This record gives sequence, C-alpha cells and structure tokens, in this order.
Amino acid sequence: MLQIPPARIGQREDEVDTPALLIDLDAFEFNLDTMAAYLAGTGVKLRAHAKTHKSPVVAHRQIVRGAVGQCVQKVAEAEALAWGGVQNILISNEVVGTDKLARVTALARICTIALCADSPVHVQAIEAAAAEAGVKLTVLVEIDVGMNRAGIAAGSEAVALAQMIAASPHLTFGGLQSYQGRAQHLRTVAERRAASGAAVDATRLTIDMLRQQGLECAIVGGAGTGTFPIEASSGVYNEIQAGSYCFMDVDYGKNLDDFGKPVSMFRNSLFVLASVISQPRTGIAVVDAGHKAVAIDSGMPGVWQRPELTYAGASDEHGRIVIAHGAAPPVIGDKLRLVPGHCDPTVDRFDWYVGVRNGRVECLWPIAARGGFS
Amino acid sequence: MLQIPPARIGQREDEVDTPALLIDLDAFEFNLDTMAAYLAGTGVKLRAHAKTHKSPVVAHRQIVRGAVGQCVQKVAEAEALAWGGVQNILISNEVVGTDKLARVTALARICTIALCADSPVHVQAIEAAAAEAGVKLTVLVEIDVGMNRAGIAAGSEAVALAQMIAASPHLTFGGLQSYQGRAQHLRTVAERRAASGAAVDATRLTIDMLRQQGLECAIVGGAGTGTFPIEASSGVYNEIQAGSYCFMDVDYGKNLDDFGKPVSMFRNSLFVLASVISQPRTGIAVVDAGHKAVAIDSGMPGVWQRPELTYAGASDEHGRIVIAHGAAPPVIGDKLRLVPGHCDPTVDRFDWYVGVRNGRVECLWPIAARGGFS
Repeated sequence: MLQIPPARIGQREDEVDTPALLIDLDAFEFNLDTMAAYLAGTGVKLRAHAKTHKSPVVAHRQIVRGAVGQCVQKVAEAEALAWGGVQNILISNEVVGTDKLARVTALARICTIALCADSPVHVQAIEAAAAEAGVKLTVLVEIDVGMNRAGIAAGSEAVALAQMIAASPHLTFGGLQSYQGRAQHLRTVAERRAASGAAVDATRLTIDMLRQQGLECAIVGGAGTGTFPIEASSGVYNEIQAGSYCFMDVDYGKNLDDFGKPVSMFRNSLFVLASVISQPRTGIAVVDAGHKAVAIDSGMPGVWQRPELTYAGASDEHGRIVIAHGAAPPVIGDKLRLVPGHCDPTVDRFDWYVGVRNGRVECLWPIAARGGFS
Repeated sequence: MLQIPPARIGQREDEVDTPALLIDLDAFEFNLDTMAAYLAGTGVKLRAHAKTHKSPVVAHRQIVRGAVGQCVQKVAEAEALAWGGVQNILISNEVVGTDKLARVTALARICTIALCADSPVHVQAIEAAAAEAGVKLTVLVEIDVGMNRAGIAAGSEAVALAQMIAASPHLTFGGLQSYQGRAQHLRTVAERRAASGAAVDATRLTIDMLRQQGLECAIVGGAGTGTFPIEASSGVYNEIQAGSYCFMDVDYGKNLDDFGKPVSMFRNSLFVLASVISQPRTGIAVVDAGHKAVAIDSGMPGVWQRPELTYAGASDEHGRIVIAHGAAPPVIGDKLRLVPGHCDPTVDRFDWYVGVRNGRVECLWPIAARGGFS
C-alpha cells in the first residue's frame, strides 16, 4: 500500500535505489518555460493534462508559469489535485456512476470544476447529481473530431446536447472538448496538419452553429504535445491540453519537424533509473526494470546516452539489454537511465518522483493520483 | 499515494465502482484446491510465486493448503510478505545494491529467506552484507535453462559458483533456481515438453555434478502455470513456482492440452470490472478501463461471457469495445468483467482486491506489495 521512497534528498544520483522514477529538474523546467513562452501573448492558455504527471506539485509549477488550470481524465485525479490546492480543473472525460458524480459535486465546493458529456444520458445524470447536492456544475460537450473513441458528432448533434445542458437548472454549458488523440503521434508535420486541421474545421463549424443558437463556448479545449502549435494558431481553440511536453518520451521523440528532423522543442526530463543485475553472457545484460516499471504499450524504452545499449525486451521485472558487438559491457551494479517509451503510464507505476539536478537528489514529490481507481 | 477502496463489504457486485480488480472467490478457491490436490503425495511442494498476487492474504490461502512458502521477484515483495507473517520466502532473482542487501539481512531475522546469484559478483556482495549484519543467508545458484535472461550456464560454471557460496563463511548453498519462462506460453503440449524437458535435463546434469562435489540441493525450484506437470513429474524438481494458476488470464487460456483444447485445469478468477462510459455510435462502446487499468503486454483483455463484445483497443484510460453486427449494444452505465490479458502486471496496477461471491462483495484485501520500487 505504501512505497518507501527510493532516495534521500542530498544523495548522489548513483546512490538512488532502483527502479526509481527520476525527473531531471533542469530539463523539466526548460520544458515548462518553453511552453509558457510559446503561448505567451497568443491569447491561448495552457490547461496542462495531469493524466501525464498526476501530481499537484507539477501542476503548480505549470500554473505559476501561466497555465489556467489542469485537465484530468478521472475523478481520483481531480481529487488529488483539488486536495493539493489546484483551483481550476476540467475532467476531459465522461463521468459515469452515482458515486463518482457525488464526488464531483463535493469537489465543486472547493474548486472550479467542469466535466464532459457526449450523450443525454450523461446530462440527465449530472443534472440529477448537481440537484441532489445543491450545486451548479459546468459541462462541456465532447465532440468526436476523428479519434473514433468517445464524443458526439460535431455539428447539430453537439448543438442539441449543448442546448440540453443549457436548459438544465443545475448545469452551465461550458464549451467544447475537442481532442484528436490520433493526430498526436503521426510522424510528419503534413500528417499532423491534415488530422488536426480536420479537427479544427469540425470544431469551428460547431462553435458557429452554437453561436447561432445563442450559446458561447467559454472553453474550447483540445490538442496535445504533438499538435498544439496547430490548434494554438487556429483561432478556434482557446485552451491547449498538452501533458507529455513536460517529460517527453521515446514515442514523442519520433515526431518529425518540417525538415524531417525530430521535433526538438522539448527535452527528455523523465527517466527510469535501473540497475544492471546480471551480465550472464557476451552481448547481454539484464536490468531490474521490466514492464511493471516502464510502460511498453508504445514501444521499448531507450537507454539514455548509451548508444551501444539497446533495451530489447521486457518481462515483468527484467529488461534485456543487448550490447553492441565490440562495446564494453555494463557491469553488475551499473545504473542506466531509461527513457520511457510512453511517459503517462510509466508515471502511473510509481509513488514517488525523485528530482535530480547536478547529480544530486534535490526533491521527492509524491505521485498523488497514481493508481487504477477512477 | 492511497487509493480509496472501490467497494464496501456487502455491496452487490454491480454497485462496485470502476475500474476495480475483482476476485471471484469460488473460482479462486477452486484453483488453490486443484493445485494442492495435484501435488498432494508427489513429494513436490508448491512455492507459489507472489509476483502474481503480491498479497500476504493470498499467500496464506496457499500455505494453509500445503504450499511450503512463497517466491518473490523483489525485496519489496519479500518485505510485504514477511511483514504479513509469511515465514518462508525465496527471492527467485538476483539482488543488487548495498541498501537492498541490507534489507534482505533484516528480513533474515524474522523469517526464512533465500536469494539467488548467477555471478561471483553477487556472492561477494551477499557475503559482505551478511557479514556486516552478522547473519547467515541462503543463496541458490540461478542457472539459465533456455530463457536467455539471467542465469549462469548449467554444469561446471554453476558448480564453481555453488562451491564459492559454500565456501563463504556467512552463506549457505541452498540449491538451484531453474526457471524456463519461455516454455510457459508455448501453445502445444509437445512444444512445452520439449522446452521444459531440456530444462529438466540441464538441471539434472547440474545436480549430479554438484553431488559429485559433495553439494546437495535443498531446493530445486522452477516451473510455472504452463508447465508444472512436466517439472513435477521429472524426479528432478522439488519445488514448483507457479503463480498465475490462482487467477489465470487470456494468455494462459490459449495453452492447449493433448487434445488440442484449452487446458481446463484452472478457472478465470481475476477480472477488471469496467463501466461503459460512452456509446457514441453504432457498433462501438467505450469503457473506463484502458491500459493503465488492465495490462496489454500480452494482448488485449477478453470480455467475460459477452461473446458479442470485443475489447479492440486500449488508450490510457479508455477501452474501445466493438459490438458484433446486430447484437444489442451495452448502454452507458453497464458494467463488464474484463479478463486480463496478463494477470501479474494487471494486479500491480491496483491497491485493492475486491473479493466477490454470489454477486456480493465478501472481502477487501490490500495488494500490499504493489508498486515499481524493488
């Protein structure tokens, strides 16, 4: 139920026990500053997605740099942020179930909170929960802009749902949730522009139709680390929901810019520190971070600044490292920084961030919203 | 840092909040009884692998049915079991690092504990830690019997390492760790017999060579849920390290018996309960269990007793369910039992087991060793 922190403040990085989730604080702050500078003066606000970092500490680092608040995917994440003093939270997802909706109404008493709907079933249930609790709740309409997951069709169906929200005595229509997740990981700029461009068009159409019915969108939210420059310059979105930009990962590192080179705006700041625990034969080493410690849903982790080492396979608690022919092998006890293939689910494996700078542990931050319960 | 339990004892299953990790207690106890009956009278003991269940409660359910103790993969798992009263623990893995080895010596004062080595580097470090703490530690030699992960070569190299252990003043040579993980998931009996048969032969050879040097193996451990009948009848192994048998999963459900049918010895007892949160268009439903809630490293989960529904894709917090043409769609709020593709890492996502029987919540058990820290 409780993980002992793998480090003490002041320790050297090479003394940290493994596996441990490291934040390189210089790179992390560089990423936060870069995003803040990018959006400054555009009129478009960052509402960073806390499904990536799951930590009020990280949320506040973003908010002091100008973020309007946070997105979350689950009620438990909203609770962890609100309990940690975050004042403006959007649950960018449908919330289903009497108990969960009651928890949302409880949060509405201590922070500004909104949630999404893509069906009249949701609107009826949220209205009932708000009436029961005697609070007002803000509801956004989630539209499907090409992701083929949740979301009502853009256009007239979305307008009808917004009208239903606006007509509900305990609800306020809050705008549109319009996220094209599939666009984030398309590798070329042209592909991302095509996918996000279609999302922008569908969103603009819906905003115009809503306006004809007298409904304004306080929030038009979407975009991720892969596409936010497109949405930010669209004139349509006013909130950017990027999450991974603060950490980056192997998968986002494969996105290419206009020149066919990896997008270099952000730096890798998140690592799983692993120890070599066996070096059983030529060409192979085994580390103590398998897929329970580093998520492999988007591919294997990289080995940071060790081009001669390839993380070639993961079992539950072991990673198999292939050593390039002729290279000096790591020895038992060596520590390697792994770059997660996918940052969000990797963070969700750990209870503690170990913040490092100049080779020393500078902070321990709890990953307050870790866990499978929503 | 703390997950609120998703259920209360006495609730109906359909009232449990989602996602939640369910144990069907009837099926679970059937599996424990089946394994105990299978091994009874063979002289081969079960040392069930707690990397699957991570819970002293489950461990004791196995021990009261005759299991000699538990295997673990990490020191943190050993701690959780020892603190929960488990008296006989084998860390079936190499343990590297001064801090971790100090924790092992601390456990040696409250339970019987052993660990593995596949290199003189390990033996030297364990001897130093035991000497420092003033305790004796039992060390097994891990041999590679075809898994190509950790493990020293069977035969003379293994014998030399065992001699080094036996000659260390604070160490006792405890036997062989000989696990062929790759054999577990081969689909036909013939393939599993070939792979495990080679492991048996290499292990027998090493035991014989050790005996010639005057070294007896108190423990010869290995095998998993896929192959244990082979090792149990080998005359070579005396401990079976099956873990998944208590829960089963989609992956083990694909193993075939001599007649080409799925092996039916054990039942599915582990489920992730999920809610339908969106039903955005014909043929598609979305549930609130994505790959943060149900591990997909060995494939997608199944949908229990709903053949018309296919879990077709997972994102972080969403599962996409494809509905067979013409079938009645699930509606928002419906709850589905998902059968995990891989039980071990799915358990590691949760803090609580929700035990159900006859449609009611009968118990809540903490998943005490959950988490990435080793």
